[in-house]
Parts: sequence; structure tokens; C-alpha cells
Amino acid sequence: MPFEPGDLVVLIDRRGGRHLLRLTEGKERIGKVGVVDTGSLIGQEDGTVIHIGSASLTALSPTVLDKVAAIHRKAQIILPRDAALIALHADVKAGDHVVEGGAGSGALSIVLLHLLRPGGRLVTYEVRADHAQVAQSNVERAGLCDNHEIHIGNIASDIAETDVDSTILDVPEPWEAVPACHEALAPGGRFVSYSPTIGQVEKTHEALKGYEMADIRTFEVLERELVVGKRGTRPSFEMLGHTGYITAARKLA
Amino acid sequence: MPFEPGDLVVLIDRRGGRHLLRLTEGKERIGKVGVVDTGSLIGQEDGTVIHIGSASLTALSPTVLDKVAAIHRKAQIILPRDAALIALHADVKAGDHVVEGGAGSGALSIVLLHLLRPGGRLVTYEVRADHAQVAQSNVERAGLCDNHEIHIGNIASDIAETDVDSTILDVPEPWEAVPACHEALAPGGRFVSYSPTIGQVEKTHEALKGYEMADIRTFEVLERELVVGKRGTRPSFEMLGHTGYITAARKLA
Amino acid sequence: MPFEPGDLVVLIDRRGGRHLLRLTEGKERIGKVGVVDTGSLIGQEDGTVIHIGSASLTALSPTVLDKVAAIHRKAQIILPRDAALIALHADVKAGDHVVEGGAGSGALSIVLLHLLRPGGRLVTYEVRADHAQVAQSNVERAGLCDNHEIHIGNIASDIAETDVDSTILDVPEPWEAVPACHEALAPGGRFVSYSPTIGQVEKTHEALKGYEMADIRTFEVLERELVVGKRGTRPSFEMLGHTGYITAARKLA
Amino acid sequence: MPFEPGDLVVLIDRRGGRHLLRLTEGKERIGKVGVVDTGSLIGQEDGTVIHIGSASLTALSPTVLDKVAAIHRKAQIILPRDAALIALHADVKAGDHVVEGGAGSGALSIVLLHLLRPGGRLVTYEVRADHAQVAQSNVERAGLCDNHEIHIGNIASDIAETDVDSTILDVPEPWEAVPACHEALAPGGRFVSYSPTIGQVEKTHEALKGYEMADIRTFEVLERELVVGKRGTRPSFEMLGHTGYITAARKLA
Repeated sequence: MPFEPGDLVVLIDRRGGRHLLRLTEGKERIGKVGVVDTGSLIGQEDGTVIHIGSASLTALSPTVLDKVAAIHRKAQIILPRDAALIALHADVKAGDHVVEGGAGSGALSIVLLHLLRPGGRLVTYEVRADHAQVAQSNVERAGLCDNHEIHIGNIASDIAETDVDSTILDVPEPWEAVPACHEALAPGGRFVSYSPTIGQVEKTHEALKGYEMADIRTFEVLERELVVGKRGTRPSFEMLGHTGYITAARKLA
Repeated sequence: MPFEPGDLVVLIDRRGGRHLLRLTEGKERIGKVGVVDTGSLIGQEDGTVIHIGSASLTALSPTVLDKVAAIHRKAQIILPRDAALIALHADVKAGDHVVEGGAGSGALSIVLLHLLRPGGRLVTYEVRADHAQVAQSNVERAGLCDNHEIHIGNIASDIAETDVDSTILDVPEPWEAVPACHEALAPGGRFVSYSPTIGQVEKTHEALKGYEMADIRTFEVLERELVVGKRGTRPSFEMLGHTGYITAARKLA
Repeated sequence: MPFEPGDLVVLIDRRGGRHLLRLTEGKERIGKVGVVDTGSLIGQEDGTVIHIGSASLTALSPTVLDKVAAIHRKAQIILPRDAALIALHADVKAGDHVVEGGAGSGALSIVLLHLLRPGGRLVTYEVRADHAQVAQSNVERAGLCDNHEIHIGNIASDIAETDVDSTILDVPEPWEAVPACHEALAPGGRFVSYSPTIGQVEKTHEALKGYEMADIRTFEVLERELVVGKRGTRPSFEMLGHTGYITAARKLA
Repeated sequence: MPFEPGDLVVLIDRRGGRHLLRLTEGKERIGKVGVVDTGSLIGQEDGTVIHIGSASLTALSPTVLDKVAAIHRKAQIILPRDAALIALHADVKAGDHVVEGGAGSGALSIVLLHLLRPGGRLVTYEVRADHAQVAQSNVERAGLCDNHEIHIGNIASDIAETDVDSTILDVPEPWEAVPACHEALAPGGRFVSYSPTIGQVEKTHEALKGYEMADIRTFEVLERELVVGKRGTRPSFEMLGHTGYITAARKLA
């Protein structure tokens, strides 16, 4: 289906950089690449190559991976692969009501919103106003803000929602938010927390056990690329040794 | 929300075994555990513990992880974590039209259906009639058959769909299905293949390059549990050393 | 060089089982396999296949890996790969004077003795008499007891050696042995500890810092087999998810 | 024991850089740090801190890890941990006669020489004269050249040794050297090859099977650091995703 006015499009440059834009009749500056007349893309097919000055860019309807790759970063983001596994353990699906503690740069929010639409709702609590603003702007640029609201506040003390399907934490002291999450969750609801250090995991387990949460489990995920090249196939030399531990649990009746 | 007539419920036994059942007024046999009067669950809360003979089981609204854990297996299944990452790279979301080659026991279908509902459609091609039947019955038991159809056939030669959002392969010779998948995909559509061996990956890469697919990439994922116990915290001794390689690519205009 | 009287020989059975024996004129029982006349092996070449009843066994001059594989186990052993890396970080070489805390079943002792001969000396402290006896008997069967002595005692309180090249711990509370190890080590000497849990590592680091040990470092090692078979090449499905963390440090002047 | 004239000493700078020097009465330039009067170290204890201009350096008797860390690199080196496991599978010990194909920068030679002394002998074949020279100079600087000889040549065609304990390959086409290694090995001798790509492993397996070598096995090793810091304990974010596959086999009679 050719691009239409109002569509969200990603431009992918030669180095794999992703730039999101909304098709209007106006012009928009794309990073260091130059200015693109967004109207000129209307009517073009998905995957069309366009030229801006000497640069060639591929215009595509953005996937969730493109949307995350295009965010403006403020500190380390949760990788899409971790976000997808967090969502799996939180059982996020269309229509879900999810509450998130810690906005980061919005990367996790984007993946969750991708999965809970249509009909679902994500509420994010973030203590730092600057992080909240960056996250909100990234969610908006990704075209996902209709199902999202973000509050300046600490999920551990400020969460107002009840009967939610899942609560998802990316905060420095997740164990402090366990009582509030337990209170907010519907019976059968899922709790998921993402933490880089082992001490955080231990304290969170202790808190979860105190609330008799079921199926408490922590795991880490390692992803390694397989390079298929002219000089032969081998695992990539480059690999992230660690991102964070994912802890999942479930509230019973 | 208390269970209502017609709801799908999972019963979790003491060893973590999962048993799916539909709430009617009838009785149903649960594996070796015994017979449950499904009507007696109506009006109970999510997470209620019930008793069958001397066994205690927890009754919950099933998550996608419960649904996969409850399937009747015919050979090795694709693990939910691999399925979630396949879905991430195929950008599966509500409303998508997805074609799958290879039914396995239906585990991957269940995760895909979980993500493309409401409004989406999954079509599965499977050459073996016995596998197709097991998969279909597992999808039905998981309450997801409304958005699914399964055909006895080889995706490489029999695929009839066009303009699909993604094609996903779990077949022994994925490279043979690349031409058909390329033809079936809409511009911008995603191709994902899952294969255990390196030779399969190499041949698939070669085929994808022949069709000028973009963003060709292969990776593997290792998951390791962190055991938080009384004797201290440590990674689990038990770990799967390998499941399969995930190869992703994208069709351009 | 053909086998001579007094040589140590390993017999490898069809399932890869290793049986060590010393060539004399006598007969020896080999596990469940049967009785072998050890004298009949004298004059045979390394790698000769012999027959005992219906079983075929390959007779070889044993490597250190054979010697470890042949030990009689009492509880979990330190794997040769971990032992080799412990030895690397302890800089074990011919002539070294090494003190070990915790005998296990003697697997680590065998690897250390293999590396510090000729001329070196390994002293092992083990609190449990039954473990000490098993370890000693395994070291003797491996033909390495000339350079070894084992004491019933706790390295943390009983170590009598001074000016040693390295101290190596496989004990439940390694941090308690840090003062004694620091005292026993020569300037420039190496401390290495092997522990399964993270809490053990943390307490050991704290103790090492208290003694201003240098180059404190902890790592874990994962080994994964690559299966090269008729059905293609792939990583092995079977893999140990964890063995233990290796912590290394060095005493300065 | 205080340093004596003729001793080999490593100076470790603040950033962990290693500089090897031999204690004479002369002066020597240490990288960018400055000039050290090596005679002034005689009589000092292991682990003494010395000052050159504004820099502080710790003077120590070098371990094999120091020796490898101090080599002048020409291209990628084999890491000490891989070298230690190669040596384990080649059963290298004092007195062994080892032939190596491919000198690299001498890192593997240094670890092998460390283990086969006293009494052993390492012969290295290297096709490139420039690599051979760098390796030789690194082995000499590490004080290990007495047991080493290096020839310009291809082990696959030029190996003159017979009845050797082990042959160890780090060459681009190891399968071509299998016949020569098989010929050179004593019965019971060990073959080990180190290769980054999977195709190299597959061809080497095929060649080894053609010579009926026993116990053919390939594995890879991943090492991950555990960071124990003020902000908590966690695996290191930095990790090498791949170095090379180690293939081991054994010659029978």
C-alpha cells in the first residue's frame, strides 16, 4: 500500500541510522543528512529509495524495532529483545492495562504500546521530569501516544490504578514498589522487574515472597549474532556481556 | 473479575504442570489428577486454589506462557522466548496478516496468535497431516482458533496469500521457501526463519541475498536462570546450550 | 614407546569410561568390565585395543584429562577446564610450591600436580577425613602422589607453609582463609578461589581488599560444544549453565 | 626472594600496562613512561613500587599472564584462557615435545613454553617471516627462548619432527596439516587446532576422521567477568562474543 498523508515513515540511512517522520506537505530536517520534503513521499511504495543531496535513504513503514532504534536517547535504553521478553512474561496483549515504573528514554514503553494496542492502556510513573519528557517525546514520535499517559511520580507511592493486568518496573529500588504493585494488580496479574545488579534481584525476591506472589523467577538473556560472510561463518566477536536480569511473578487471589 | 461460563482457565498443579479447560457445566478429566467439575469454577476469583481428590491446583486465567506450557507435544517445540523474539523481528502486532511454514506442535502459532489478535490472521502450512492435527488441536485448546487456518502443504510451493505482513519459517529447508515468501510479502514485509543448524542459516542467507532482501541478520539467544535461594544466589546449573538460530530479513519495494 | 613394567595406563571403554591401572605382572579388576592381566599390556603400543570378554578397550598412556575422568567421585568435582584456568591465574608451573584449601575428590589436585612437576610441591588442607581419603586415593591412582601431601585441617587456621607461590581455595567460606593465605604467600604470590555463589565472591573481594591484594578479578567460564554431524553443525543442546566463579588476586611486597 | 642480577621483571603501570625487562646494570626505556635504571631494582622485593618521573610502577616477578600481556602485538593474539585450554587438551607438561603450526605474535608459544619447561621443546612453523620474527622476539623478551625454535615454513609440508607428544595448529587451513600432524605424532599423541570459523572446524573434522583419530571434539569457551563494585555486583557489560573454536583429537596406535 503506497504511503498516505499522515503516515509515519522511517528513513534508513546507509549506516543503518533510523529517522522517523510524519508525512505532511511540509519539509523536515533529518539529523545531519539534510532536509526532506515529506510530501514527496506520499504515493511512494514501502521500501522506496529516496535521495537527499548525495545521501540515499530507504523509506519504510516503521516496525517496532525501527521505532526503538530511532529514539533520542537519554542514558542506556532497555534493548528490544529484553523488552519483548519482559512483555512475554507480563503477558502483554491487545487491550491490556499496564502500569510501568521508570520511563527511561521510552524504549520499553514503545514495545509495550506496540503490543497492547488497540484498546489497551499504558500508564508510566517517572520521578525525573527530564526523563519523562524525553520518553514522552519519543513515544509521540513513534506514533503511539494515544494509548499512553505519563506521570511525574514514584510508582512505589503514587500509583493510582487498580485491577491492572501487569506492572513492569525499571527502577533502582524495585523492592520498594512491590507492595504498591501487589495492591494495584488484579488477581492473576503479572509483575515484572528489570534490574542490572544481583543485589536488586535478591531484595526483590524477598519482597515478592513477603506478598506470597507465585511463580517467582529470574533470568538473563544473552544474544549473539552469527556472522555469515565471505570468510566463513562464525559468531560475532562483539557481544553485550550483560544488560539486566528479568524477574517475573504473579499475584494469586 | 470472577470466572464466567465459557472462560478458558488453566489449572496449575504442584509440580508446575499446566492443564487448560473451558468452563462449562460439564466434567473434564485433568491428566492423571482426576475429574474436575468445570461449572464449580464459575464465579471464583483468578488464582483460587481448588482440590481434586488429594491434589491442590491453582485456577488462573491463562497467560500465553501457560497456553504454551499446556500444549500436547509432538517432538521439540519452539520455546516461548524464541517465539517472542521471532515475533519481535517479524513485527507481529494486532491486525497483522502472517503466514507460517511448519506447524510443529503449534507453540509458535499460539504466541503469534496471542500477538496478532484482534483482527489479525495466521495461516499455517504444514506438510505432515499428523503434525497439522496436533497443532490445530493445541491452538483450539488455547482458545485461539478463530484467527487461524492451517493447510496441509508446503509453504515453498503452496502458499496462496499475497501482500502479507510477515512470513515465518520453521522448516528443514527454509532456503527453498525464500522465493515463495518473497513473492507473498508486501513491500516492507518481514521474513523470519528459525533453524537449528549453521548450514541451514548459510543457505538461507544465500537465498535471501538472491532476492535482495534487506537487513539480513542471524542471531541466537541464550537464557540462563538466576537461582535465588537460601544457600546463596548463583546462575542455574541447568541451561539449554542451543535451541535455534533466528534469521530475519525485510523485503524492499 | 611401548608400555613398560610400572607404567600407568588408561583403558577407555566404548562409552568413554576411563579406568587407570599400573602395569605389573598381576591381574586387576576393571569396574564392571572384567579382569585384565596387566602384564599382557607390557610391550604393547600406546593406543592398542585389547579385549576383555566381549568388551574392547583402548589402552593409552593417560593424559591429565584421562586421570581426572577416571577419579572415583565423592560429590561434584571441579571440571578440568576450570582447574586449568585456576592454574593459569595461579601461574602454576614446574617447581612451584602450592597450598590448596579443600580437597574435593582430588580433581583439582591432579591438574595442579600435573603442572607443578617435576620439582614442585602441593600441600592440601581438608577438614573432612573422608574427603581427604578419597582425594588421596585418587591422586595416588593418578600416579601423582610423590609431590603431594594432604593434611586433615582447615587452611584458614592450620596452614603451616610460608613463602608459597600460590594458594588455591575451594572451600565454603574462602573469605575466612584470606588472612592465612596472605600470610603464607611470598611477595608476588597468587591467590585463587573457586566458589559457586555470588555472596561468596562478594565476601572474598572484601577480605582481599582488606589485605590490599592487587589485581583482584572474578570471572566465570562457559564451555559449549560444537556438534559436527551428518545432520549439520550446531552448538550442543547440552551445556552446563554454571560451575563456579574464579577469583584471582596477587600479594604485593 | 629479592630480585637478583639477570632476573626477568615486569613493571605494571597505573593502567595495567605490562613492561618486561631483564635486570642488568644498564638503563632501559619503558614505552612512553621513561627510562629505568634496571640495576636499581636488584635487591628489591617482589611487588615493590618504583617511581620513574611522575609515574609509579609495581615491579614483580612476571607470571605467564604478565608475559602474554607484555607482548608486542602483530594482529589478534590467542588469549591466555584459550591457550590454557589448548594446552590442557594437548596435555602439555614438563618435558613434552610439542610442534606448533602458526606463530601469531607468540602468545600461544609463551603459554606452551611456560608449561613444558623444564626439559621440553617447542618447535614452531610459521610461513610469514615477519610474524616469525615478532613471535621470536616476544618469546625471547619473555625469557623462554631456550626451549624454543622457530622455522619459516608450513607445518603441513615442512614438519621434520617425529614421535612428538602433541601438534597444535593456529593456521588458516588446519585440515591441510592433518596428514603431516598425524605422521609426526607418537601413538597416543594429541592434536589440537584453533580456528575462528565453523567451516574450518568442519573441514578439520573431516580430515581427522580420514585418519581415524580418536576422541574428536570441538568446543568454544566464553569468559565473563563479574564486576563487584560499590553499586552492586553484576556481570560485566563488556565481553568477547567469540574468539575461536578449539578442536582436539588423539592418535591411536
